[in-house]
Amino acid sequence: MFPDSGTVAGPPAATAVFTTVLTEGPVSRVALARRLGLSSAAVTKAARPLIDLGYLHELAATERTGPGAGRPASPLAVRAERAFFLGVKITADALIGVVCDLRAQVHASARRPLTDPDVEAVLIEVGRLVDDLFGAFPGDRTRVRRLGLALSGDIDRTTGLVRYSPFLHWRDVPLGRLAAQRTGLTVTVENDVKALTAAEHWFGEGVGAESFALVTVGTGIGCGLVVNGRLVSGSYGVAGEIGHLTVDGAGPDCHCGGRGCVESIAGTDAIVARAREHTGRPELTIDEAVALARGGHERVRAVFTRAGTAIGCGIAAVANLVGPTRIVVSGEGLAAYDLFDSHIRTSFERQAFGAAARCPLSIRPLPFEEWARGAAAVSIQSLVVP
Amino acid sequence: MFPDSGTVAGPPAATAVFTTVLTEGPVSRVALARRLGLSSAAVTKAARPLIDLGYLHELAATERTGPGAGRPASPLAVRAERAFFLGVKITADALIGVVCDLRAQVHASARRPLTDPDVEAVLIEVGRLVDDLFGAFPGDRTRVRRLGLALSGDIDRTTGLVRYSPFLHWRDVPLGRLAAQRTGLTVTVENDVKALTAAEHWFGEGVGAESFALVTVGTGIGCGLVVNGRLVSGSYGVAGEIGHLTVDGAGPDCHCGGRGCVESIAGTDAIVARAREHTGRPELTIDEAVALARGGHERVRAVFTRAGTAIGCGIAAVANLVGPTRIVVSGEGLAAYDLFDSHIRTSFERQAFGAAARCPLSIRPLPFEEWARGAAAVSIQSLVVP
Ligand SMILES: [Zn+2]
Ligand SMILES: [Zn+2]
Repeated sequence: MFPDSGTVAGPPAATAVFTTVLTEGPVSRVALARRLGLSSAAVTKAARPLIDLGYLHELAATERTGPGAGRPASPLAVRAERAFFLGVKITADALIGVVCDLRAQVHASARRPLTDPDVEAVLIEVGRLVDDLFGAFPGDRTRVRRLGLALSGDIDRTTGLVRYSPFLHWRDVPLGRLAAQRTGLTVTVENDVKALTAAEHWFGEGVGAESFALVTVGTGIGCGLVVNGRLVSGSYGVAGEIGHLTVDGAGPDCHCGGRGCVESIAGTDAIVARAREHTGRPELTIDEAVALARGGHERVRAVFTRAGTAIGCGIAAVANLVGPTRIVVSGEGLAAYDLFDSHIRTSFERQAFGAAARCPLSIRPLPFEEWARGAAAVSIQSLVVP
Repeated sequence: MFPDSGTVAGPPAATAVFTTVLTEGPVSRVALARRLGLSSAAVTKAARPLIDLGYLHELAATERTGPGAGRPASPLAVRAERAFFLGVKITADALIGVVCDLRAQVHASARRPLTDPDVEAVLIEVGRLVDDLFGAFPGDRTRVRRLGLALSGDIDRTTGLVRYSPFLHWRDVPLGRLAAQRTGLTVTVENDVKALTAAEHWFGEGVGAESFALVTVGTGIGCGLVVNGRLVSGSYGVAGEIGHLTVDGAGPDCHCGGRGCVESIAGTDAIVARAREHTGRPELTIDEAVALARGGHERVRAVFTRAGTAIGCGIAAVANLVGPTRIVVSGEGLAAYDLFDSHIRTSFERQAFGAAARCPLSIRPLPFEEWARGAAAVSIQSLVVP
């Protein structure tokens, strides 16, 4: 986080109280104490500075619901508009940005095209997008102090370093520090799939889940995992690489050096390459391939079927190994949702072991603004968790 | 745990202190306080009843090592012989038992054949084995109060219920309660792979690891996982099912209903079936297949090569998805270690994504006594963790 302007919550108890109230909505002190294994006095002590700073407030008596006997429940709630956060997703050809409140609700959005992957050129566009977002934001601008950036690749969230970004051809770029200098904001940088997982875990379908998986389908095929209540980051910085599980030992060689990887069958590039072979049209685009498949072109349709089957096997691997409570499947690749959906499900159900098949799959398209919201969610986390 | 005789460690702080001293050896109070985020006073308060009951003791000044300046370090250590635990692994044709101390060191062992999978017949043999173990144990028998049972299948550790045991053909057998009635001991029941993982996590190569995987190779191919410091149990009771990951979409049908599963290629039954096809000898045993492969029979050798390759892909899937700090590969199948080892490694290295290939693999055979020690380790955990 750059500059390190600290966090709101200090001691562990304050962090736990803030996180719980933020992610799960109004909670009474009694429920907080029970849930967090704290005394009532400890909850009150932890909450006081958060109330004084305006992040939490006590709901008034008239706002309370439920059986009212005994001591007043005085549930604590978040003031969502106490602080706002910019979130920016960096893709190969565009920057997509949003302004979110503390509960990751979007209040404004903006985009800028990106034509030059040079670090300085990207920073200039980030600065312009930040200006655009401030311009579009209808609220109190002094409450916007933080910026989250998200992009695919190998990112060190702790230091804001982009170790490797394949699509920008960056290695070891201290993006957090540079963007903080440029914008004057406190900046976080995170891998885009992990950022999206953070958003789902704190503010989406993963709230309250001890375990949870988010699978993204597109140019790359990735996965964010929450297990035993925390994001899985991998002892060697690698985790959630569902795209490089072998599902077909006789399958195509993959750019990773492996063979028959999910991504080598179901990644956008693989689908386009296979559709080109089957049509003899070397310039075919993914949109044209989708149109052909929808129009009933058997061999192109079969390319999507095989891709959906490979994705389903990868998802079943996640269910069989870590048993998440639920799995969300999303990403720009699912614009062709209708071509994938049933094959993903059939293959998942065949390959999930026993009760693992009970894990619900939510398969849904994902607008690019959601990725930007993921970036903002990481920025929110940096305020709340030391 | 039956009967529920409670645990030694009461409040969370006491459990944390006991667990840390037990698994990581002598630790100073200062180090304990720092590690566990407790005050020095809280550590002292948590340790006192454990010292009074004889489970922990303070090392004398002469036993201390390291720089001795400043306040005395007074490290806390476990009295390993304060309590002993029986561990029994139940297989299709034998019971294997050990007596372990608090640090899971084996002090005695015994075996009994099993000829009848009937519940009552198994309980009779468990009772006899317990008598044999008491007979073989050279120490103070009044300190043996707990028995851990481990077997493959779907086990509910919390209630001691065997939901499903394929090789004993049991469904919903309350083994914990029945064995407690039979032996008068406090009984735990756990899935054998999870029990072995518990032993490695607390007393083996997994000590101190935030994440860790144990892969077992034999009739079944299983995996125990520790992620974010805790065993992964799966939201629907399924986790670590590495044996049912698809690694070859065109591979054989699996008994699970899936296709091209690791187990359908590398499980003992699959290897024997394939070796029989290739030799035309319908009575061939696994030992004969191993002998043929070692003797240079090309087609039988290829069966082991394909099996090792499938196992390596499965292990790479674990590394790519959860990124454990280390992976131990073991099990009775690895008696044919020499036929598997290099193919497991080659396939793992090809398929592990980027830095995930840095995860060290320990590939080693596993004597059956180790499974019994796993059962004892779960019993030890039941004493320490509420
Ligand atoms: Zn790959
Ligand atoms: Zn299977």
